[in-house]
Amino acid sequence: MSKRVFNFGPGPAMLPTAVMERAQAEFLDYNGMGVSVVELSHRSPQFIDIIDRCEALFRELSGVPDNFKIFYMHGGARMQFASIPMNFMPRVAKPKALYFETGNFAKLARVEAERYGEIIRVVDGESCGYSAIPSFDPSAIDQDAAYAHLTANNTIYGTRWMEFPDTGDVPLVVDATSELLSREMDYNQFGLVYAGLQKNLGPSGVAIMVCREDLLGHAMPHTPTMLDFKVSAEERSLANTTNTFAIYLLMCVLEWLKEQGGVAAIEKVNEAKAKILYDALDASDFYSAVAHPDFRSTMNVSFHLPNNNALAEQFIAEALEQDMYALKGHAVVGGIRASIYNSMPVEGVQRLADFMKEFERKNG
Amino acid sequence: MSKRVFNFGPGPAMLPTAVMERAQAEFLDYNGMGVSVVELSHRSPQFIDIIDRCEALFRELSGVPDNFKIFYMHGGARMQFASIPMNFMPRVAKPKALYFETGNFAKLARVEAERYGEIIRVVDGESCGYSAIPSFDPSAIDQDAAYAHLTANNTIYGTRWMEFPDTGDVPLVVDATSELLSREMDYNQFGLVYAGLQKNLGPSGVAIMVCREDLLGHAMPHTPTMLDFKVSAEERSLANTTNTFAIYLLMCVLEWLKEQGGVAAIEKVNEAKAKILYDALDASDFYSAVAHPDFRSTMNVSFHLPNNNALAEQFIAEALEQDMYALKGHAVVGGIRASIYNSMPVEGVQRLADFMKEFERKNG
Repeated sequence: MSKRVFNFGPGPAMLPTAVMERAQAEFLDYNGMGVSVVELSHRSPQFIDIIDRCEALFRELSGVPDNFKIFYMHGGARMQFASIPMNFMPRVAKPKALYFETGNFAKLARVEAERYGEIIRVVDGESCGYSAIPSFDPSAIDQDAAYAHLTANNTIYGTRWMEFPDTGDVPLVVDATSELLSREMDYNQFGLVYAGLQKNLGPSGVAIMVCREDLLGHAMPHTPTMLDFKVSAEERSLANTTNTFAIYLLMCVLEWLKEQGGVAAIEKVNEAKAKILYDALDASDFYSAVAHPDFRSTMNVSFHLPNNNALAEQFIAEALEQDMYALKGHAVVGGIRASIYNSMPVEGVQRLADFMKEFERKNG
Repeated sequence: MSKRVFNFGPGPAMLPTAVMERAQAEFLDYNGMGVSVVELSHRSPQFIDIIDRCEALFRELSGVPDNFKIFYMHGGARMQFASIPMNFMPRVAKPKALYFETGNFAKLARVEAERYGEIIRVVDGESCGYSAIPSFDPSAIDQDAAYAHLTANNTIYGTRWMEFPDTGDVPLVVDATSELLSREMDYNQFGLVYAGLQKNLGPSGVAIMVCREDLLGHAMPHTPTMLDFKVSAEERSLANTTNTFAIYLLMCVLEWLKEQGGVAAIEKVNEAKAKILYDALDASDFYSAVAHPDFRSTMNVSFHLPNNNALAEQFIAEALEQDMYALKGHAVVGGIRASIYNSMPVEGVQRLADFMKEFERKNG
């Protein structure tokens, strides 16, 4: 038995131990072929079967409508901060897009997009320290925009959109990196949903794209072929050698998620897990949550200890002694962040809540 | 013991069994941390140590001079077919580059680059079916070009540059995907050497870049930040979440290569392996090599059986029965291709040569 800790890291993140054990067992010999899945051609029937199975499972688990294409892009979500404007800006006569700026990655996406057209910030959460999703004036949704972009869950601050905004005919583009398949969503609201795999879905380096097919085929002339969504959709992500290992592990994670009862079932578990931590925070005057109660993420729970960096460091070190790893908050927020994606068992969250109480008793 | 066959696939390719066994053993628990290397933050000290160790080992094994930066780019070599012109074209007043077109990937690189500036084809090997590296007129090396691009080893046809051309002050950019660290090279000849990992070095999805530092910092305005070489060099490939598993496996492969005696030692082994197959081809009137004898690759050996597709299929099927996998030639050439990268043991090549003789005896 390999040692396994509860890994609260924000990403690359914990994957289900059952998935990891399966990948380990078949690492040298995939399907009795005598070669590893990482040594298998991306054009082999066996890998095509993996990519087919991922699509079928994703469609089954998400309920995404048939008019959406599913494909993979190199470079994680961050590469798509450029590829999205490059692919969508020419949809409109005058390149323009709307950005809901509700956190660090939302801001990075907006800054990158500014290089490709005019950007209107519909909301800017910086003034409230990104602790809430600011309300906005629906008339600010300029119907001449090529798209509107938002970040579904803000990993650093631990806030999320409870409901997604109505952007009219402007396609809503959603970075769901830290949330995809953790809760049910009606994909009819969206033009594109995308996510780096390395939080809820697999290892790093690749993004899954769920794109309404009528939005494909508008790329700017200088778009690299490998960043053209239409090429990737038409070539089924095999325009060149994709990250085969990541897509294989995604398949294993999707099979595991189906065994857990699917998205509706895991969403209930995720809500229960988050409640354990938020209840602990609400019951305490020692800890303070970063996120406003109306916008609490179920994936990332960020909180502060009394204004004292040394105490946070002590918390992190003592938690590690109890096999709770990677609880350090992001540098821009400090404090503690517990990332509790689909793979985190309830036991891990309960252990953390118990530890929080004990730590407060000793140091409060 | 897992079953292992001799995998002659062109890429994603066979990796050393010792490397794969190590990766399997520590897959659930890296360094006693209780988390997998795929579950580890790219900013953790443990992953920074992996990336540092890769650089130190690569420098030691390759002998690359200190004025070169080493970094990783998303998307394999094919993504760089766009990023190279995007990063280098503005080095000169009028965007222009030179391409040595000696194979399928060389052509794809040229076609992609044409979208970013004027391209001069110094050689075009299509007329000879890419079976040789055509000679060229040194006066065709336009000294006003931003760079000159070539493919060191042509994976599909099994040809290679025995010596690299003198391009004067024009930086020579080399796609070494199927050759990097398989033979000694004097990096002083080059401006940039790059390679997708999935042939000689690791799994798919990422490229290693070895770039003379004075060439950095000239990217076109529309270059995605994640494709800007200067950003990746300065951020040590961690501008966003890199393909952590690929870089970890690269480290394991580099450590293995050092144990084999380094590049000079593996180059001798590679020459001996290739000689076994070329001797078998030269001794036969049944098989015919694709590559002209003056340009024979030591990495990919492509050959035809008598004009008969059914016979090639029979060859591939019978070889598989003897645990020799993925010998099918690329669709544009047909026939047989044996990819014999660093990881392929001499025994695998000898088994193939023996099989070739026996197959000829039965079917010749």
